[in-house]
Amino acid sequence: MQYLPPALESLVEHFNRLPGIGAKSAQRLAFYVLDLPKEEAEAFAQSILEAKQAITSCPVCQNLTEGDGPCALCSSLRRDRSTVCVVADPKDVIAMERSGEYNGLYHVLHGVLSPMNHVGPDDLRISQLVSRVASGEVREVIMATNPDTEGETTAMYLSRLLHPFEVRITRLAYGVPVGSHLEYADDATLARALEGRQEI
Amino acid sequence: MQYLPPALESLVEHFNRLPGIGAKSAQRLAFYVLDLPKEEAEAFAQSILEAKQAITSCPVCQNLTEGDGPCALCSSLRRDRSTVCVVADPKDVIAMERSGEYNGLYHVLHGVLSPMNHVGPDDLRISQLVSRVASGEVREVIMATNPDTEGETTAMYLSRLLHPFEVRITRLAYGVPVGSHLEYADDATLARALEGRQEI
Repeated sequence: MQYLPPALESLVEHFNRLPGIGAKSAQRLAFYVLDLPKEEAEAFAQSILEAKQAITSCPVCQNLTEGDGPCALCSSLRRDRSTVCVVADPKDVIAMERSGEYNGLYHVLHGVLSPMNHVGPDDLRISQLVSRVASGEVREVIMATNPDTEGETTAMYLSRLLHPFEVRITRLAYGVPVGSHLEYADDATLARALEGRQEI
Repeated sequence: MQYLPPALESLVEHFNRLPGIGAKSAQRLAFYVLDLPKEEAEAFAQSILEAKQAITSCPVCQNLTEGDGPCALCSSLRRDRSTVCVVADPKDVIAMERSGEYNGLYHVLHGVLSPMNHVGPDDLRISQLVSRVASGEVREVIMATNPDTEGETTAMYLSRLLHPFEVRITRLAYGVPVGSHLEYADDATLARALEGRQEI
């Protein structure tokens, strides 16, 4: 016996497909949306459509943006245009910006090299990075891919690719996370932290 | 410095407004929707609009349904039309149906009496319940509001209201843990509660 009207069932299913939303949460969210004032529910639906339609890639850094021109970061006159931080994902730009310590530009690869998942260099925004570096404006490229196997491999691949250009290539430091406990740090992290120890 | 395009920021905000979805989750969901194929994102937006447009109240039991006629449960020939289970919320119908032990019809109040929140009898679908009972087809009304103060009060109020009619008025047995919500009760508990219902 079906006890949810089809239109509601469909909404529950759509929520259920989102990452981290189980059957119970999906139902709760669907009922919540159903209880919203008509205008708010419509605004929600509209924001999904608009995000899909309006969001494009910045022609410079490949990060998400709106319209045809360069994104707000690439157009900013306050940013240091000689430094480019290479990240895998738009979310990583947000994380870096949150730190408040970086004042250069970015380059978003939209993924990492992953032979297992059939992701090769042509599937990432690598040629655009090479063009940027080749243009001569860039002095330093900071590799900030995730410190896991695929992130490391991608950083290594890119550093070799950019080697012919007169550009400094660096990598985010490894070490123990601030505020964490040594006790819980894994061996590899501790070894790297020791290796990269600095004078105080 | 703003680093999310406005259209994406707006989508994140809409997700953030949903119950139980924090800032991090909202961002993850927005990025996920942005990565969906165009048709799927459109189907999601459409399902929100359709749910809002298509869902109405069943003229008999007041549960959520589509179209003008009685809902699937009220139209079913397999259900016992002489028993009506009164619940506060459409979610409670789902919970009861999940138990698989109930074969009668429902009446959804869409809330409970709550002087604190200015919810009085006129704000609930109480007159419709009285009409159903007055029609003479109903032999038993099972109160299945939440076993908390407001649910109890509502059940007591209704039982007094229905007392003049020749109808058996019962309440779910206290197999349901006091202070909890029907929505989260497990099937076995609900089944027991139904089995042990008592006169009030």
